[in-house]
Amino acid sequence: MPRIPEDRLVSHLTELLAREGVSPPRAHRLAELYTQASADGVYSHGVHFVPGLLRSLRAGQIPDTQSDPRLIASFGALQRYDGNAGLGALNAEFCIDRAMALAEAHGIGCVALRNTRHWGRPGNYGWRAAEKGYLAICWTNTPPNMPAWGGSADAVGNNPLVLTAPGESGEHLVLDMALSQFSFGRLKTHRAEHQPLPVVGGIDASGNPTTDAAAILDGGHPWPIGFWKGSGLAILLDAFAAILSDGLDSASLKPGPGDPGVSQVYLAFAPAHLHGRPAAQRTGEILRQLAISSPQSRYPGQAALAHRRRSQIEGVYVRDDIWQELS
Amino acid sequence: MPRIPEDRLVSHLTELLAREGVSPPRAHRLAELYTQASADGVYSHGVHFVPGLLRSLRAGQIPDTQSDPRLIASFGALQRYDGNAGLGALNAEFCIDRAMALAEAHGIGCVALRNTRHWGRPGNYGWRAAEKGYLAICWTNTPPNMPAWGGSADAVGNNPLVLTAPGESGEHLVLDMALSQFSFGRLKTHRAEHQPLPVVGGIDASGNPTTDAAAILDGGHPWPIGFWKGSGLAILLDAFAAILSDGLDSASLKPGPGDPGVSQVYLAFAPAHLHGRPAAQRTGEILRQLAISSPQSRYPGQAALAHRRRSQIEGVYVRDDIWQELS
Repeated sequence: MPRIPEDRLVSHLTELLAREGVSPPRAHRLAELYTQASADGVYSHGVHFVPGLLRSLRAGQIPDTQSDPRLIASFGALQRYDGNAGLGALNAEFCIDRAMALAEAHGIGCVALRNTRHWGRPGNYGWRAAEKGYLAICWTNTPPNMPAWGGSADAVGNNPLVLTAPGESGEHLVLDMALSQFSFGRLKTHRAEHQPLPVVGGIDASGNPTTDAAAILDGGHPWPIGFWKGSGLAILLDAFAAILSDGLDSASLKPGPGDPGVSQVYLAFAPAHLHGRPAAQRTGEILRQLAISSPQSRYPGQAALAHRRRSQIEGVYVRDDIWQELS
Repeated sequence: MPRIPEDRLVSHLTELLAREGVSPPRAHRLAELYTQASADGVYSHGVHFVPGLLRSLRAGQIPDTQSDPRLIASFGALQRYDGNAGLGALNAEFCIDRAMALAEAHGIGCVALRNTRHWGRPGNYGWRAAEKGYLAICWTNTPPNMPAWGGSADAVGNNPLVLTAPGESGEHLVLDMALSQFSFGRLKTHRAEHQPLPVVGGIDASGNPTTDAAAILDGGHPWPIGFWKGSGLAILLDAFAAILSDGLDSASLKPGPGDPGVSQVYLAFAPAHLHGRPAAQRTGEILRQLAISSPQSRYPGQAALAHRRRSQIEGVYVRDDIWQELS
């Protein structure tokens, strides 16, 4: 179970990505984003994601690794971009930055991005906004990977969703969640470790509710959070992303490595322009109150911060087989 | 089980509200909103809500029934209002209208409202936006009524959330959901009818997960949708509402009839200004695809529309005891 110092991991991944034709500054930023996700404990969307990305690059599946998203339409605080089916994580960072710039000018900004690819860890863009003092909401659609509630075939995406509010001393609220009760990364981990899920996570191939991750992944289907409620939320987030970006909805996406073609939305809010009590102070109050009323509970973002602090001292965890593949 | 014609119900409720000092035009609009909620099948937040509202008015708990929300701060497409602890449903309609006006001018609009009261059926404001062709997202915080995940005392609100996308021929996508797996209205119905919940809805007084609505309401606690995920979402929606409105967060709200003091957010989007494919057409495509892939599932808003069509023909259902109280 190797733990690699962050800077060494970033240099190494930069080199591997540059070798596949990504320009050095873009390779470096990508390496930082995937390293940060692993440092924060989100391994499946961190360094463990990189071998697949390298294979896609090598196979020529991402022809344009160089361009920023292209502005398609703009009206006031609302903009629409095309991601050139390029590098999803860099496209995403570009778009949250644009949304924050719009929020500076208009109080709130909305960027819709179509024709992009898998953005890595969704939380990346929430942390970035929180660190700059913005509230933000971002989501992506995905190919259908869950039944709509009441159905038995994959019909809706698990459309990962991020909400963030800036806090004090780096203690930001960052909710980073897929709308399936368990992300596919977590299902695979439970399958690999033969551990039952803590609550029902979906149905097996016969349609029976189960806590067996293997049964869900191998012929079954994951369930949405809140059953019918998450199913409805997934449908609405998809409609928003498709409409605002004039891009593909979940059902129109063709499955493929890196989810080519997905549609995303980035909302940023700049409440400081309204001159009320500072956002970070309010978030701090909410966290202190939660710590009193719910001492056993963890706030969204708390686990990531704890992982990050450990990774800074002990290095970033990378699974043995992945590290061998990358070495 | 009386079914009352819509127009008769509206006139009758208008009279009752006006008798408690609400000006006739405002009483009429309130009567329409509560009648519409019942016509759409959301009885607990429709006509069944009115006796409590009348009692609050009679007791002088809503001193200002006349004022519109007061503008506190404004910057571009972002505005903050104070609701004067007034009539929640009228305050809410005012704010979704302001958000749509901002979206007309800026592509997107955000209105945050503090110091308001219970807004009735959340979906009211989603339907209104969809009928005018806007995408919208609205939510309210509530006093703490669920544990944060991992905790055992009420610490977070179930913060009802609405998302809407306009569709074709009145078939709008309207998601209207509280973040508890079951709304309190539904829990009370199951308790009254001695029907078990279809899935675990919370814990009983001893902390055991249960499908017994009575056990949840009487000494137990409801659970959030998606367990830890809905808990996190509730925390973030509360933080957004409190920060953007510079209003009270859930933990700072004092319980009371009509949830006095709650904070709300209204987001409206005007994608037509970006000149892509029309929103209604895209929504229609998504609904047709869902009907093919998931013939057993219902889209968000479908049940409300079916109830509405029945109510138009057969009259609006009102529970016997409520109708007697109102007669």
